[in-house]
Amino acid sequence: MLTKSDILKIQSLKDKKVRYESGLFLVETPKLINELIDSAFEIEKIYTTEEHWIEKKSKNLEIEIISEKELSRISQLKTPHLAVALAKKKLVAPYNKTEGITLVLDGIQNPGNVGTIIRIADWFAVKKIVASLDTADAFGPKVVQATMGSIFRIPIEYTDLTTFLTDNTLPVYGALLNGEDAFENGKIENGILIIGNESQGIRKEIKHFITKALTIPRFGKAESLNAAVATGIMLSHLV
Amino acid sequence: MLTKSDILKIQSLKDKKVRYESGLFLVETPKLINELIDSAFEIEKIYTTEEHWIEKKSKNLEIEIISEKELSRISQLKTPHLAVALAKKKLVAPYNKTEGITLVLDGIQNPGNVGTIIRIADWFAVKKIVASLDTADAFGPKVVQATMGSIFRIPIEYTDLTTFLTDNTLPVYGALLNGEDAFENGKIENGILIIGNESQGIRKEIKHFITKALTIPRFGKAESLNAAVATGIMLSHLV
Repeated sequence: MLTKSDILKIQSLKDKKVRYESGLFLVETPKLINELIDSAFEIEKIYTTEEHWIEKKSKNLEIEIISEKELSRISQLKTPHLAVALAKKKLVAPYNKTEGITLVLDGIQNPGNVGTIIRIADWFAVKKIVASLDTADAFGPKVVQATMGSIFRIPIEYTDLTTFLTDNTLPVYGALLNGEDAFENGKIENGILIIGNESQGIRKEIKHFITKALTIPRFGKAESLNAAVATGIMLSHLV
Repeated sequence: MLTKSDILKIQSLKDKKVRYESGLFLVETPKLINELIDSAFEIEKIYTTEEHWIEKKSKNLEIEIISEKELSRISQLKTPHLAVALAKKKLVAPYNKTEGITLVLDGIQNPGNVGTIIRIADWFAVKKIVASLDTADAFGPKVVQATMGSIFRIPIEYTDLTTFLTDNTLPVYGALLNGEDAFENGKIENGILIIGNESQGIRKEIKHFITKALTIPRFGKAESLNAAVATGIMLSHLV
């Protein structure tokens, strides 16, 4: 049975500050938790109403059977589904700057967009995501679920972008409204692609690092594209 | 001042059935309402706390000044912003089947996805959207806001897809997991592109109409892409 303090601890993980201090985050639904078990992430505990769905059990897997009522108290989903796991955030491995594409997110604030972008990055084999400190936290419950498991495969680092970009020698591509045609650019072997905030775009102080501005050509009348959609289109033409 | 019956009437428009029967839908925020005024849609009334933001006033524009409290009662947004308009749904003009690209949505159920897809269709100058009857209603409050005004520019028809596709002679492209490389297909002048449901994909009875299956090549490990992202990537390679 869950104690009151267990429940409070798990509930508190919807709070970014608590996730930051504890290094823990929540993963829900059997599908995602099975991917978590398969990943390099450590699992502190799995809380579930039944355990038949767990594909790979290991000695180190701590599992606690709970009631439906307890599940609904610790779940962050509208419709809780069988299980909630407590996982440990993983530190990003030192990164070889000369290989592949790094995606840089400058102030993407919508959690759904961040989750969708992580899934896109996984589809197009992006090597790493570097996000500004005001980008929605990738380990928030909504983002984790929106990544559909891709969060276990793509390394993500939150850092000061100015410092990161100052210390860089790769070509820097940026999604802007007045750049060159992204469809005519050809493929990128190694480089950085910056995606800006949903309404403000890329910040002035970050724009300054762009060595080649790219634009998705517009054929109709919409003013802009959703940040995740723009990321998907850009990567599909550059990878 | 708004009567109780005005408030109930406006509130009831969050209900698809009421929108269907009345032919009305809600548009919120000055930005979107200014686009509505500019469009070919008829406006029944604009309710606003102040009217300085209206860019083009005409004799036919009925405007009612309301209080902040009244606004918060009739708004569907978490943070109401200055105005709510009642607009009349527009019937789709007879469609020339031999020109441009028609986007067909087969059971896209997430309102945010439908809104984002309408915005993408507007960006890539899609001629028309034809949606299955179980696709999220384009005139629902969440979808209207997610289109960022594109809903006033792209004709949308809800219909039985089997009938629509039976009565068609254009090439039919479908986004499937085992089709030909969408990046190698070249441009489409005239044709239909079908996008399937977020988790089930395109239905069996609809798949049957596809003359060329297309797939977005995968470089990494994500199992799938979000339906709106896939639509954006497909169109960016086909338009």
